[in-house]
Amino acid sequence: MLLDAFWSEVLGTGVLLLLGIAVNANITLPRTKGHGNDWLLTSLGWGLAVFTAVFVAFRSGAHLNPAVTLGMLVVGDPFVTTDAGTIAPSVAAAGVYVAGQLVGAFAGAVLAWVAFKKHFDLGAEPGAMLGIFATGPAVRSYPWNLVTEAIGTFVLVTWVLLQDQTPAEIGPLAVALVVVAIGAGLGGPTGYAINPARDLGPRIAHAVLPLPGKRGSDWRYAWVPVVGPCTGAVLAGLLVLAWR
Amino acid sequence: MLLDAFWSEVLGTGVLLLLGIAVNANITLPRTKGHGNDWLLTSLGWGLAVFTAVFVAFRSGAHLNPAVTLGMLVVGDPFVTTDAGTIAPSVAAAGVYVAGQLVGAFAGAVLAWVAFKKHFDLGAEPGAMLGIFATGPAVRSYPWNLVTEAIGTFVLVTWVLLQDQTPAEIGPLAVALVVVAIGAGLGGPTGYAINPARDLGPRIAHAVLPLPGKRGSDWRYAWVPVVGPCTGAVLAGLLVLAWR
Amino acid sequence: MLLDAFWSEVLGTGVLLLLGIAVNANITLPRTKGHGNDWLLTSLGWGLAVFTAVFVAFRSGAHLNPAVTLGMLVVGDPFVTTDAGTIAPSVAAAGVYVAGQLVGAFAGAVLAWVAFKKHFDLGAEPGAMLGIFATGPAVRSYPWNLVTEAIGTFVLVTWVLLQDQTPAEIGPLAVALVVVAIGAGLGGPTGYAINPARDLGPRIAHAVLPLPGKRGSDWRYAWVPVVGPCTGAVLAGLLVLAWR
Amino acid sequence: MLLDAFWSEVLGTGVLLLLGIAVNANITLPRTKGHGNDWLLTSLGWGLAVFTAVFVAFRSGAHLNPAVTLGMLVVGDPFVTTDAGTIAPSVAAAGVYVAGQLVGAFAGAVLAWVAFKKHFDLGAEPGAMLGIFATGPAVRSYPWNLVTEAIGTFVLVTWVLLQDQTPAEIGPLAVALVVVAIGAGLGGPTGYAINPARDLGPRIAHAVLPLPGKRGSDWRYAWVPVVGPCTGAVLAGLLVLAWR
Repeated sequence: MLLDAFWSEVLGTGVLLLLGIAVNANITLPRTKGHGNDWLLTSLGWGLAVFTAVFVAFRSGAHLNPAVTLGMLVVGDPFVTTDAGTIAPSVAAAGVYVAGQLVGAFAGAVLAWVAFKKHFDLGAEPGAMLGIFATGPAVRSYPWNLVTEAIGTFVLVTWVLLQDQTPAEIGPLAVALVVVAIGAGLGGPTGYAINPARDLGPRIAHAVLPLPGKRGSDWRYAWVPVVGPCTGAVLAGLLVLAWR
Repeated sequence: MLLDAFWSEVLGTGVLLLLGIAVNANITLPRTKGHGNDWLLTSLGWGLAVFTAVFVAFRSGAHLNPAVTLGMLVVGDPFVTTDAGTIAPSVAAAGVYVAGQLVGAFAGAVLAWVAFKKHFDLGAEPGAMLGIFATGPAVRSYPWNLVTEAIGTFVLVTWVLLQDQTPAEIGPLAVALVVVAIGAGLGGPTGYAINPARDLGPRIAHAVLPLPGKRGSDWRYAWVPVVGPCTGAVLAGLLVLAWR
Repeated sequence: MLLDAFWSEVLGTGVLLLLGIAVNANITLPRTKGHGNDWLLTSLGWGLAVFTAVFVAFRSGAHLNPAVTLGMLVVGDPFVTTDAGTIAPSVAAAGVYVAGQLVGAFAGAVLAWVAFKKHFDLGAEPGAMLGIFATGPAVRSYPWNLVTEAIGTFVLVTWVLLQDQTPAEIGPLAVALVVVAIGAGLGGPTGYAINPARDLGPRIAHAVLPLPGKRGSDWRYAWVPVVGPCTGAVLAGLLVLAWR
Repeated sequence: MLLDAFWSEVLGTGVLLLLGIAVNANITLPRTKGHGNDWLLTSLGWGLAVFTAVFVAFRSGAHLNPAVTLGMLVVGDPFVTTDAGTIAPSVAAAGVYVAGQLVGAFAGAVLAWVAFKKHFDLGAEPGAMLGIFATGPAVRSYPWNLVTEAIGTFVLVTWVLLQDQTPAEIGPLAVALVVVAIGAGLGGPTGYAINPARDLGPRIAHAVLPLPGKRGSDWRYAWVPVVGPCTGAVLAGLLVLAWR
């Protein structure tokens, strides 16, 4: 059953990153149909990428995000309950989930590169090219960038852990809209990873893919969208333990 | 139980203002990812901020707005019914709700400032800086600005008080979409507070936070987004009493 | 009970036109917060205006549109079924509905004018001023404009009459999204009245309100957004009779 | 019963293409109300066109897309189950569905041309004129364009075949949002046919309609949005057989 959950997270996070990176590529790369569109397309596109991905990852409860897995671990919620049984929260299970998320995120980014191959071949300015794959700070300041990522993830994970107290009545669309809500505003300073796998998987893809004119993958920043979201997730878990 | 409701309104209104002020900051401040986006991002962002916040405030019925509390007081609807019991409408309970809303609105605005700290440090034109926090009239005229706020809030509170006559089937998304509907149009003249806490809490935050180059917090206007929404809420309550 | 339905249509169509005309005013009038926004805000704004209005008109089944009433008359569907009873389709009942829709549409437009009073006072180019209230052809050709209005309304009324064959699961949001779908594309040539009351009520408001610098209300075109939608509604009714 | 399904697919795909081609026409043709709008209007407009069309095609399960029919054939899911009975998957039934989809797609495109007649008469640059009807590559490369179409359709059909494992709670809106999610990003390189009928029907309409200044209908590309989606659908079917 954990193996099923692993592949479920691979598939779901793969679809999430395929669709999300595709939105970035569509807006950034030359000669695409959506070139130059604005933040609203970015926010909505990533939100609906989450929406689509949730359905694909039905065997694992569609965490799709190490911060979500971490938050559930902190509060002790089961990772998923299906006809096949329940996956109890544990560090080992969390490791399997996170591994699947990272594999899926990398694979989804590569698939997005395949889909836009001819446009990637046209090249882009190095910073823009990296920005298609990885998040980056608009104003670089590791402590403050970390705080921003922590706050955004805090809202997301708090919502995820409290959502079942209110009948949403719209299924997976609810979490998608929360992601849009966070991205529309709090995404402004750092591009809202709010998900370590969303940043790390595509950053590795950027490092290994043959992208014309690319420069480094900004590994000095790479810890921020990992530590920030994890910090926010733990804080959310503690709040929810106190409040729920 | 009223204490739970107080903290519930603090948390919910905090998330609402955190996400909403973040949208304004993202659009207004220099060098953000969403700089210069348009009214649609504003309208959708604030609507989805309401959506997210409703889930967080599940213990208090998610009023998140003194005008909503006032409208329910006028018609005599219970403020919330949960497993823990019912909070009957009363002036005292309304005071607790409004206190929570103001505390949350102030705290949410401060948290948004933290999330955009490095961008706030870059400064902005004083009017734009204030506009991130507080609403303001596009054309200043206290009586007409008050009328505009009253009309927008009248629609909101009427909807809130009548909604349970029709199965919405989409849970908290429904009120979020009504907020978008009001903002998209009626937000044009005054920036649609339609919620005294939404305006007053962040205005106080603007007054006390160290914002580079800020000037006054326009306290002469501050009564309009309080009195206007309250007037609209009372009128909505009276209509609903006659019609429901 | 018909009197209740009358007032219900007045209130609902009033809210629809208040919110819809406000969107137009926000985009068109000088110095508003949403000045210069694009067709997407128009399409979404009017769709969500429908969404909001449906809840207000719960006693009459929320027709809000003479073309919908006409389509239901053609196929013989009851106008509304509530706890208080059923209103059977008849020409007399349809007359009451349409009267309520026209009164509401006029009143809603006047209320939008009140909300934007200070911006209306700044004036606008006569064609733009009329365009806030009434629809008009981008390329004037009475027969083709009529065909466009008939096609758009045909889609709307066909959908309304067939919707209950499929569980929408999203309540009044469904019809709102159909209105967005029609507006996004088919609204291009004529501004999509697809509702005689939506055009006629505000056109009368334009004729009687003291709008600075206005010229005529283009009464020569006014029959098109009445006859076109009615034609589309009858065709939709006939199709549905054959197909349902 | 298959005859009903045929007409159902004609009607549904007709509405889909009418609304979708209308969005393209509104954005592309001179002097329309939505001229010059961006990719977000395109993505949302086509998604909501799907939403509207699903309700109209209730007798056939609303495939509206040969790739969906092919995917269901591969996995062996019934094409539709209604009160009137079940249509089992078979090559013959698939042929009836696809025939209905092509007829509907052609007819819908013609109807959109009628709705925008006076704007089509104003003419457009030949490439833009073709782009209203048929999809085309931003960078021409038959193998890579085919890959892009296959990936987009793979996501769509995988989602369609897996969706019933998760309660969506939003009915036909779910598939509409998936179409928006795919279009927002993966639509960038080829304009996302992800549906052979969506491309082929309107391309035939382009070939036969009297469009001022049109040049060829780019038949050399026409096989790509047929073979690509079919490839993606078969791959999706195989994945789902292994995973479901």
